Amino acid sequence: MLDQNKIKTFNKEQLPSHKINFDHLEERLTQKGLDLEAVVDQIGALQIAVPSWALGTGGTRFGRFSLGGEPSTLEEKIKDVGILHALNQSSGAISLHIPWDIPKDYNAIKDLANGLDIVFDAVNSNTFQDQAESLHSYKFGSLSHIDKAVRKEAILHNKEVINHGIELGSKALTVWLADGTSFSGQHDFRGAFQRTLESLEEIYDHLPSDWKLLIEYKPYEPNFYSMVIPDWGTSHLLASKLGDQASTLVDLGHHLPNTNIEQIVALLMHLNKLGGFHFNDSKYGDDDLTVGSIKPYQLFLIFCELVKGMRETANPELSWMIDASHNLKDPMEDLLQSVESIKIAFAKALLVDYDRLKVAQSKNDVAGGQSILQEAFRTDVRPLVKESIYRKGGALDALEAYRYFDIRNKLISERGRDSKSTGL
Amino acid sequence: MLDQNKIKTFNKEQLPSHKINFDHLEERLTQKGLDLEAVVDQIGALQIAVPSWALGTGGTRFGRFSLGGEPSTLEEKIKDVGILHALNQSSGAISLHIPWDIPKDYNAIKDLANGLDIVFDAVNSNTFQDQAESLHSYKFGSLSHIDKAVRKEAILHNKEVINHGIELGSKALTVWLADGTSFSGQHDFRGAFQRTLESLEEIYDHLPSDWKLLIEYKPYEPNFYSMVIPDWGTSHLLASKLGDQASTLVDLGHHLPNTNIEQIVALLMHLNKLGGFHFNDSKYGDDDLTVGSIKPYQLFLIFCELVKGMRETANPELSWMIDASHNLKDPMEDLLQSVESIKIAFAKALLVDYDRLKVAQSKNDVAGGQSILQEAFRTDVRPLVKESIYRKGGALDALEAYRYFDIRNKLISERGRDSKSTGL
Amino acid sequence: MLDQNKIKTFNKEQLPSHKINFDHLEERLTQKGLDLEAVVDQIGALQIAVPSWALGTGGTRFGRFSLGGEPSTLEEKIKDVGILHALNQSSGAISLHIPWDIPKDYNAIKDLANGLDIVFDAVNSNTFQDQAESLHSYKFGSLSHIDKAVRKEAILHNKEVINHGIELGSKALTVWLADGTSFSGQHDFRGAFQRTLESLEEIYDHLPSDWKLLIEYKPYEPNFYSMVIPDWGTSHLLASKLGDQASTLVDLGHHLPNTNIEQIVALLMHLNKLGGFHFNDSKYGDDDLTVGSIKPYQLFLIFCELVKGMRETANPELSWMIDASHNLKDPMEDLLQSVESIKIAFAKALLVDYDRLKVAQSKNDVAGGQSILQEAFRTDVRPLVKESIYRKGGALDALEAYRYFDIRNKLISERGRDSKSTGL
Amino acid sequence: MLDQNKIKTFNKEQLPSHKINFDHLEERLTQKGLDLEAVVDQIGALQIAVPSWALGTGGTRFGRFSLGGEPSTLEEKIKDVGILHALNQSSGAISLHIPWDIPKDYNAIKDLANGLDIVFDAVNSNTFQDQAESLHSYKFGSLSHIDKAVRKEAILHNKEVINHGIELGSKALTVWLADGTSFSGQHDFRGAFQRTLESLEEIYDHLPSDWKLLIEYKPYEPNFYSMVIPDWGTSHLLASKLGDQASTLVDLGHHLPNTNIEQIVALLMHLNKLGGFHFNDSKYGDDDLTVGSIKPYQLFLIFCELVKGMRETANPELSWMIDASHNLKDPMEDLLQSVESIKIAFAKALLVDYDRLKVAQSKNDVAGGQSILQEAFRTDVRPLVKESIYRKGGALDALEAYRYFDIRNKLISERGRDSKSTGL
Repeated sequence: MLDQNKIKTFNKEQLPSHKINFDHLEERLTQKGLDLEAVVDQIGALQIAVPSWALGTGGTRFGRFSLGGEPSTLEEKIKDVGILHALNQSSGAISLHIPWDIPKDYNAIKDLANGLDIVFDAVNSNTFQDQAESLHSYKFGSLSHIDKAVRKEAILHNKEVINHGIELGSKALTVWLADGTSFSGQHDFRGAFQRTLESLEEIYDHLPSDWKLLIEYKPYEPNFYSMVIPDWGTSHLLASKLGDQASTLVDLGHHLPNTNIEQIVALLMHLNKLGGFHFNDSKYGDDDLTVGSIKPYQLFLIFCELVKGMRETANPELSWMIDASHNLKDPMEDLLQSVESIKIAFAKALLVDYDRLKVAQSKNDVAGGQSILQEAFRTDVRPLVKESIYRKGGALDALEAYRYFDIRNKLISERGRDSKSTGL
Repeated sequence: MLDQNKIKTFNKEQLPSHKINFDHLEERLTQKGLDLEAVVDQIGALQIAVPSWALGTGGTRFGRFSLGGEPSTLEEKIKDVGILHALNQSSGAISLHIPWDIPKDYNAIKDLANGLDIVFDAVNSNTFQDQAESLHSYKFGSLSHIDKAVRKEAILHNKEVINHGIELGSKALTVWLADGTSFSGQHDFRGAFQRTLESLEEIYDHLPSDWKLLIEYKPYEPNFYSMVIPDWGTSHLLASKLGDQASTLVDLGHHLPNTNIEQIVALLMHLNKLGGFHFNDSKYGDDDLTVGSIKPYQLFLIFCELVKGMRETANPELSWMIDASHNLKDPMEDLLQSVESIKIAFAKALLVDYDRLKVAQSKNDVAGGQSILQEAFRTDVRPLVKESIYRKGGALDALEAYRYFDIRNKLISERGRDSKSTGL
Repeated sequence: MLDQNKIKTFNKEQLPSHKINFDHLEERLTQKGLDLEAVVDQIGALQIAVPSWALGTGGTRFGRFSLGGEPSTLEEKIKDVGILHALNQSSGAISLHIPWDIPKDYNAIKDLANGLDIVFDAVNSNTFQDQAESLHSYKFGSLSHIDKAVRKEAILHNKEVINHGIELGSKALTVWLADGTSFSGQHDFRGAFQRTLESLEEIYDHLPSDWKLLIEYKPYEPNFYSMVIPDWGTSHLLASKLGDQASTLVDLGHHLPNTNIEQIVALLMHLNKLGGFHFNDSKYGDDDLTVGSIKPYQLFLIFCELVKGMRETANPELSWMIDASHNLKDPMEDLLQSVESIKIAFAKALLVDYDRLKVAQSKNDVAGGQSILQEAFRTDVRPLVKESIYRKGGALDALEAYRYFDIRNKLISERGRDSKSTGL
Repeated sequence: MLDQNKIKTFNKEQLPSHKINFDHLEERLTQKGLDLEAVVDQIGALQIAVPSWALGTGGTRFGRFSLGGEPSTLEEKIKDVGILHALNQSSGAISLHIPWDIPKDYNAIKDLANGLDIVFDAVNSNTFQDQAESLHSYKFGSLSHIDKAVRKEAILHNKEVINHGIELGSKALTVWLADGTSFSGQHDFRGAFQRTLESLEEIYDHLPSDWKLLIEYKPYEPNFYSMVIPDWGTSHLLASKLGDQASTLVDLGHHLPNTNIEQIVALLMHLNKLGGFHFNDSKYGDDDLTVGSIKPYQLFLIFCELVKGMRETANPELSWMIDASHNLKDPMEDLLQSVESIKIAFAKALLVDYDRLKVAQSKNDVAGGQSILQEAFRTDVRPLVKESIYRKGGALDALEAYRYFDIRNKLISERGRDSKSTGL
């Protein structure tokens, strides 16, 4: 749908002013001793996986307003990611959700992805919904269920998800459990924890030795009194008991009000136990909004910890993924804005003068430390992000390009106005 | 399905111990100078409307686990309320939701309800979902929509809801708006407020002179950045501008964390502008759990304000309704537990010695004031509630009776395992 | 100030009606198969330590309104606890705070306490304020401070606190750290964690083998961006690394909004790592209000986990303490109300039919499980609590007795209106 | 202490690079059709009042760590503001707090302020602390107190504050009430509201016709169950009942978690009832941190509403003030950083293309609307802010200049290390 020549043409108009902006910034930053080429390379290298379910319109319990042109097959989902990646050169991975995305022909799927420069990121299991072919119901839990038969089915499902992932070249399984209770007395906390641990142990045993098991946590929703893995502490406890291949996945929306997420990130990296990220933004709960649309400074502070952590700790490489719900915006536009925000936060974090920060900290120069962070945050780094994408053949303004090429309407005419994405 | 003789038989076993408990409590409370007969009468007189949509299994955006035997027609919904009311003698009203519950034959529906001792409470409009026959979409708002045509359709819908309500004998329209934004910049706050006001004015003009317009507020969900009527302040502002027939409806789950709801209730009654209630309980957001299952003391404190307000202010009579989502429990069981909790809170609030409380307050006797409230809250008032229901022919333990009569299974065999309730 | 005869006389009037209430409850509960004597014994045996600083008027950053008659010496503090204990027979322990309560003569102090049937509970260190004799300032931290000299002083202080505790017969050190940051960039999260761990290791090494090290956590205040031990996860991580004698202390007010505290309690007991409690209540933050005055149902649910955990896990014996700030009430009255609330919650938790609950859970009978808990919570257990206190010689209504004996005025005439309690 | 020549010299080094940055930005923005001179003028014209109490070290209930050199007289406080204003040319107003800042000689004080180009902003009353000379205590409230004598004293105090303000040329009284309760039952909500209204009426009657009465609201602290003016709704209700001169003051830290403050601002301006601002930032409660240090994007969104509101509504001119607590940083540094953040947010809000935004809104182009706001927010506007200050004779980097001139140490050598600021 999009070839590099088209994008080149699109870029032509913006290129001159981009060059001026970039040169200006380059001069400013180089004077400060920054290796700008290295920064641009690092920004360019960051790839953020798109989850297959985020390509369709999301909804709330009150309803869903579809958009049209949504991908209804795995092939179409991969093609959509291909479009995003062609535009932003930063979305070169897709994260599948089983059973919504079971490939019929692994090789065909791999070839398709390959041709679009897309790899397969973490695979996701689903034990929060009942499937037509389910033997048991997950209404009252899955890996923590009181009934061993239900747990068995859920464990088996996770193993199958791993099997699919192996075929596709994934290297990680993400487990998000909706298990929990909406009423006190509904289950026994200790029993539920113990059963969850034992179920995870069986899944962990099935993991290839070069795979990671990523354990997500969430304080509430869809259960409203307790969740079996409500916080990083519980996730980390499970991951520690499981072994080196297990680690914690942080979804930005899965925290109680006012949680200091950057501190959690720092601590998990200190323990070499941070496994990956689900990016989104939120004001109230797990709002699943566009990354960076509500709290861009928090996002920047998280990236500061990531940048420092990647330099100073032995934490293994991270899985990066967006996990949002696109209720109002065109999902593709939402994803482009999310990726842009992530890269901007990352670029700003790369500009921080951590050596000077350390000096300020050694003297308890609180105002000074704040100024050092703000110096980076207040810098307009868009020229760096644009340059990094431009050099790889992407569009200087991906959102504008998406609209310029009228992609949504093309998808609608291809797939129809009523095509529905599987999943949420 | 349930006649009074069956219930009488069921009560037989529990009656002796109930009598002992009631006599014991009567003696204790009468010694304190309480007119127990009056209290029992007041408890018995409180009727809480059941919303038609709460009779089916609720869900979250992650899925829904149906139960079977759900009512799929308005007639069946009324019959279900009839069962509840036969059991607890406290659910003698139903609150309809249009377009889910449009009656085909008003008289037949009224006769059915009449025969079950059920009246029609506030009617509810729905402008948060698109209907098959909609001309426009409410995706970006209804009464506040930027496009006048959409607003017109939403206004018209509300007028039609009033018309249906007139036919059935309702005396109030409840307006809950999902209107709002999930992103900054999505709409203009001032414009959206003004449009909402003007739309409500048109609806208000259509209101019969003996009707109330109840304006609900909610801080977030399904929109996650702003709602056009986010708090009591905005609702009250609108109601004040509209006129005497408009007032604020408080849904217990529609508040930011830690809000002091009882103070809002007191203030609105002081202004004679409290219109009604949607009861439920919650720990995190609008969790829509069983009333009294999370914060029974808060519920009691709210009822203390209601009891005092009804005695001391000129606030008009209130509309009482449950609004919950029964995701895990049998909806009928959930409703029985909710009504029981409401009546227990009400009974405790009736026991408070408000004269002594006033004296404590006049002396700033803080510990004393607390003790007076706790004295009432810690009293086991279940004998009073049971007695009030028993005297009207209800079951001494409605939940147990519901199970004893095996009602769910009867409904399943009547209606099938896959019957689905319209609505959420 | 109070001898048992006076209390006996005071009880006379209330005794007859208490007996009637107790007998009625006894009959009801015994019919259900409960061993009521055992329950009364358990309630009576629970002793909750009073912290020395809670005997004076507390304040906020906006000011403090003193009451008069406050204890200004350790001796007076112990005497005040003696009065409380004489009245409620449940406050037979005091928790000292160093340096506010350094004894001059250990034996004299022990004799005084002994004579009042009071033991010395956990000792508390203070590294959140600077003392006149401090060499360094804790403005920017203590055990986590960037400067080794400051850490050393803080470590040494903790060791001295242990030494004082040894002399008095304490068996635990409680460490609450105010360490943290109010601004991003102020310190390095990983460094601060690591320094805290290493400081704690030195303190742990000084611990006698029959002592416990209790590690408190708190998400914010007095620092407003991050705390070095913000949550149970961090506390537990530290306690795990330190060894078997270290465990987590839960202060009810030290959680982000909506945290499920009972689940944390259950999980820590599952790990045999729950060390103790600081009881209080709160609506917004660390409000330090009277126990049970805001969320009595949550308190009950926590006690359910404690009762089950004490029966089913190998978790070591817990330290029980109140930690509140008495800004408005007479501190003694506040403490009497707090202890009463704790005992009521404990009594209710003892009444829960855990066997039936287990059955309900095994069948995912959600409504049934809730009913079993509510059955206990709705029972008026005050006769049990009163009986347990009465049997030990305490007052049937401690608060009323405190007022009847006009104790505050006596303390004021003894100590003056301006006597100030050391500490907060 | 600071003359313009010194500042000129200081600026010399930074000037060349500033000019390059400014020119670059000027070119970029002028191309977009922006009248940059007008923007720079508007930024320069914004003056933010410094509250007299913010010049000393703040504290929490756990303690206070003084810094030295704090101003202990009104004269010294004014001099400190003079230093700030000389540096940033944006702090040309001081807000006094009575009784802490009662002038002995009005003319001398006015002359001093005048000479430093400083005017007197809103005066603040204090009825949350008892003064040595108080007849009654505010422990249980002031304007809402149950006892008429206490209310009278509080009303009289407010009138006296107005009188002081008249002498100094202030034009507004800010009323912040700590009144409220920490326990349910402590007072009657309706009675407390009514008494507050009546007390405010008496104060309002004393107001000169060109004065404003600014009514602050706060949900909690120092009371922890309820506050008599907890939210904007209550403040607005009072202001509406009082009359045209009364309006609502928004303190950014006085909201429940997740409140959408920008919407409140917009609505109050729509009603012409927004009176002023207390700027600060916070993560958890009323943390009173440096403006812009936690949520700079929220600050920007608030300024967008202010800019639009000032253009499109008839809302009267606003009072702008910082209200923060400087527990860790040098208060002067903190204030400089706060003012800088405010000006940056204001500058960004001035850059927003509101016409294009309106178009996006008219089409429900959600992603487009977000991009328009982000375009402005992501722009590095520091050259504009610097230029506006530079043109008025201020320092290009006020914080650096403050350190360069070693002002704190000079103040310490003048005033001593133990000088204490009156107030909090």
